[in-house]
Amino acid sequence: MASDYSDILEKAYQRTKALNDEGKLATYIPELANVDPDMFGIHMTTTEGLELGNGNYLEKFSLQSIVKVLTLTLAYKILGEKIWGRVGVEPSGTKFDSLILLETNHGIPRNPFENSGAIVICDILISNLNDANKDFLAFVRELSNLPDLNYSEKIASSEKAGGYRNVAMCNFIKSFGNIENDPTEVLDFYFNICSLEMNCQQLAQTFTFLANGGRKLSDQKEIISPSQSKRINALMLTCGFYDESGEFAFKVGLPGKSGVGGGIVALYPHNYAIAVWSPKLNPKGNSYKGMKFLEELTTYSELTIF
Amino acid sequence: MASDYSDILEKAYQRTKALNDEGKLATYIPELANVDPDMFGIHMTTTEGLELGNGNYLEKFSLQSIVKVLTLTLAYKILGEKIWGRVGVEPSGTKFDSLILLETNHGIPRNPFENSGAIVICDILISNLNDANKDFLAFVRELSNLPDLNYSEKIASSEKAGGYRNVAMCNFIKSFGNIENDPTEVLDFYFNICSLEMNCQQLAQTFTFLANGGRKLSDQKEIISPSQSKRINALMLTCGFYDESGEFAFKVGLPGKSGVGGGIVALYPHNYAIAVWSPKLNPKGNSYKGMKFLEELTTYSELTIF
Amino acid sequence: MASDYSDILEKAYQRTKALNDEGKLATYIPELANVDPDMFGIHMTTTEGLELGNGNYLEKFSLQSIVKVLTLTLAYKILGEKIWGRVGVEPSGTKFDSLILLETNHGIPRNPFENSGAIVICDILISNLNDANKDFLAFVRELSNLPDLNYSEKIASSEKAGGYRNVAMCNFIKSFGNIENDPTEVLDFYFNICSLEMNCQQLAQTFTFLANGGRKLSDQKEIISPSQSKRINALMLTCGFYDESGEFAFKVGLPGKSGVGGGIVALYPHNYAIAVWSPKLNPKGNSYKGMKFLEELTTYSELTIF
Amino acid sequence: MASDYSDILEKAYQRTKALNDEGKLATYIPELANVDPDMFGIHMTTTEGLELGNGNYLEKFSLQSIVKVLTLTLAYKILGEKIWGRVGVEPSGTKFDSLILLETNHGIPRNPFENSGAIVICDILISNLNDANKDFLAFVRELSNLPDLNYSEKIASSEKAGGYRNVAMCNFIKSFGNIENDPTEVLDFYFNICSLEMNCQQLAQTFTFLANGGRKLSDQKEIISPSQSKRINALMLTCGFYDESGEFAFKVGLPGKSGVGGGIVALYPHNYAIAVWSPKLNPKGNSYKGMKFLEELTTYSELTIF
Repeated sequence: MASDYSDILEKAYQRTKALNDEGKLATYIPELANVDPDMFGIHMTTTEGLELGNGNYLEKFSLQSIVKVLTLTLAYKILGEKIWGRVGVEPSGTKFDSLILLETNHGIPRNPFENSGAIVICDILISNLNDANKDFLAFVRELSNLPDLNYSEKIASSEKAGGYRNVAMCNFIKSFGNIENDPTEVLDFYFNICSLEMNCQQLAQTFTFLANGGRKLSDQKEIISPSQSKRINALMLTCGFYDESGEFAFKVGLPGKSGVGGGIVALYPHNYAIAVWSPKLNPKGNSYKGMKFLEELTTYSELTIF
Repeated sequence: MASDYSDILEKAYQRTKALNDEGKLATYIPELANVDPDMFGIHMTTTEGLELGNGNYLEKFSLQSIVKVLTLTLAYKILGEKIWGRVGVEPSGTKFDSLILLETNHGIPRNPFENSGAIVICDILISNLNDANKDFLAFVRELSNLPDLNYSEKIASSEKAGGYRNVAMCNFIKSFGNIENDPTEVLDFYFNICSLEMNCQQLAQTFTFLANGGRKLSDQKEIISPSQSKRINALMLTCGFYDESGEFAFKVGLPGKSGVGGGIVALYPHNYAIAVWSPKLNPKGNSYKGMKFLEELTTYSELTIF
Repeated sequence: MASDYSDILEKAYQRTKALNDEGKLATYIPELANVDPDMFGIHMTTTEGLELGNGNYLEKFSLQSIVKVLTLTLAYKILGEKIWGRVGVEPSGTKFDSLILLETNHGIPRNPFENSGAIVICDILISNLNDANKDFLAFVRELSNLPDLNYSEKIASSEKAGGYRNVAMCNFIKSFGNIENDPTEVLDFYFNICSLEMNCQQLAQTFTFLANGGRKLSDQKEIISPSQSKRINALMLTCGFYDESGEFAFKVGLPGKSGVGGGIVALYPHNYAIAVWSPKLNPKGNSYKGMKFLEELTTYSELTIF
Repeated sequence: MASDYSDILEKAYQRTKALNDEGKLATYIPELANVDPDMFGIHMTTTEGLELGNGNYLEKFSLQSIVKVLTLTLAYKILGEKIWGRVGVEPSGTKFDSLILLETNHGIPRNPFENSGAIVICDILISNLNDANKDFLAFVRELSNLPDLNYSEKIASSEKAGGYRNVAMCNFIKSFGNIENDPTEVLDFYFNICSLEMNCQQLAQTFTFLANGGRKLSDQKEIISPSQSKRINALMLTCGFYDESGEFAFKVGLPGKSGVGGGIVALYPHNYAIAVWSPKLNPKGNSYKGMKFLEELTTYSELTIF
């Protein structure tokens, strides 16, 4: 199987690399617009320990919304099922920063991966941790075996400077009573978590716990229960790609999560986690080449969850 | 494994049977309100040929929306990928008969399983078959090995009599140009397909082709390609349960499709198809006990696609 | 005053005539697309009996939505205030044929002038008259002193042929229970009333009762009470121009009603009714030159209700 | 006429006073909940100088949204017609603090009287005045002949403390680029203007300029042009009562503006301005008795703009 994956990855990598990149750099976070648009890297970590990387897989990039899986993981670990009283588990059918459904649903976000839901998860962590910024960072450091991982102040302040839509969203939810803490504190934490940076290798390795029944691969320590792990995977499948989640399930057939930094992480449960990065985004806000690469990958491998 | 499934099914069946049924009979199709509300049956057919039934699994019920998977299968088989120019692949985030997103999307339904999308699929079949009513029936008869299967005139006319919402929807889509045929003809066909009846055993057996890479189990004949089969499964997972699709993926973790007749069919690819029937529906329009049973099943078996 | 009006009308007429007409002919009713696009006529009838016409004011045109004021008048006369249980009195804030608010409001149209509301008024007339088609025609014939007035079969069938959006709307309302009769019968009547034709002179004369406290000008017979007359005027001001009602109140400052045939009728209570016709429509579906002319008129006269 | 008004006012006052007040005190601004709920006062000032007051017409109350007519007046005076590039003139058809239409309209509020529109007007004043807080206060002081008028710090901070919805709205508009200044500064000014207090007599006198062609009654000084005055009146008629504007036009038939403090001001152009105050609000957020009183008034007087 190892050599199989190696061949398939190589083929999918080369085919995608050759594509004309029709995507565009994210512009609403000014700092992200400074990234080299031609970066393209991939890395797969299998549950059997195989590591396969290609292209710019050792270059760091901004995780952005990908981190929302990790904040959810920590909040779910702490609160258990009662977390779902604060945020739903349904796809939204609208753009990632829409306020319309939030109004209809009286301040309960549709799911923990749209911006509004991720903001509510941040509020939950602040209420349940001593020092959310410090404690969440410690959690990710341990999960990723990256003791030097830090928030990027430059990215966080760049997003903060123009984040009027997120300020609107957080205050809107607060007006419905579904934010407990001060909106400014919640948003500062939110901008911090989104600013974390990893390279493809680190990202794939970090997410292997979700391909491994909730256990960290390196030491088999249980991060969350197998059932919680399955449920987070289900959420990634139905809600991981904003208004393109159905398309991703349809064409790629794996649970995954994208970020406007151009990264995507996807999982084949019991088999592997894979990270891909290419900064130019399609009109739905997902990495253009990242989506194409994963589509090629599962077309060649014929291995999807369906 | 055979005995495993048998024990698990028995346990899940007994536990669900003992539950207080909080659902309510569908009332908007008068004929459906005449069904014995206490019916409860299950049947599993594995890809290895094992057949396991329990309760009222040999009683026929109205398939209703479950059939939309079969109309989609036939239309997809005929048109291939160009079918997606007429209907999307995204979950809708709204109730199954909402017209709001249809207006926003200029008459392109979000997916082939919400009513509007299924109506467009019916229109496609009328345009591409000699006699849609006859030819679709022949297709399902062969797929199910049920040569005597017929539309239920009683159910079809009962739905037709009160189907103002569907008339509205079909004409609304026509006003955007996404219906080619006469709305009355399209709706007559639509009400016919929804009126098909099977029992749990027949339903599970019919759907095994989707757990078998697109091949009919009894003779391994290819109905659709493996890739098409995966994609239909992906659509069932993201869109098969109206506004409760995320919840089903989250709690059950299998592709599936429900109908207001109280039936649900679900699949574990490469393993089995399972049908469950209990007529009383939860507030989202899905079988109350059907949902509970499948949740029990995958909790005990610990086997889901995630 | 008579000569004043004469000068003002002449000035406003000439200025508007000289304008480049940026409007476009309505195309969704095929028969309306055959009209000479350069027609432009105006006619004022004052409550003191003065008659002032200019341009093509003796050419007939299709009244379309303008007639909705007359169906409302008859229904209001018959039912009194209980009519407002079936239809609201609020502007809609959306396009004239939107179904979104109708869904939010559970089938109660926002007001009697948007298509959905006018359809409900037609349903009310069918339920409350022996023969709605005949009786409504008789009502308008008497009101207008036009004993030979007839529905235009050509226009009615032209609209019917492509009226899928209206079929959708009527069935949608029926699904909420706010249509009592058969949707086909209601729509046939609706298409009939919209097909009435008058010239500017006839239209202005017909509407003088609303500038005359509810009394027909020629014989002072009470059609509706003064209070009802005021209320219909208020509705024309807030809801008479679809999504441009605020703009019309703002720029023209008179109650009025437009139709996609390019006609507009407006009233200065206690003073005059005025009709203007020019078939090319602005993007909101109102006569381009008609709107401009009325704006010029009230700018020169400095006489508005505000 | 003077004695006529006197009788009519007395009759309408007594009838309304005797009504069971079905309204409820506003609770979302805590300070407003401390008001004596039984207060009921009215005051009319005619353009001929007649002054008629009754009940608690000398008790001050919080003007809240009524002030939005005065910020609009000043902004319109400064910018002229180009103001309408920043805010529309159409009724909204939704609740006063809805964000839905704002999203559809890309940050351009429907009209200057809904909260979003009033916030944009505040932003315009900040950009165009040396010191918006001071200069606007000076403008109202002169208009009202109340040199000691001041913002109420208590009310302003009470509203600020719970004003998450307004923070959301302002930042949401900023995200579309339709707010030039810092959202916090804009909102501070917005909460200040809403905190102004007058009694019924002062309020009626202040608004007489809109019944007097834009000229201040006491010295006939032109505040705004006659055309601008008419247009502001038109806006009050179509948009002055949130989602109940059509109802007010329909039942009362005068331009007016309400506030959640329980005050309403209305105008009969060329005749009078009238203020009424009663703190308990109907479900649409308008004074229950205030609406009833004005309905009685125009029913008895038979004098409306229609």
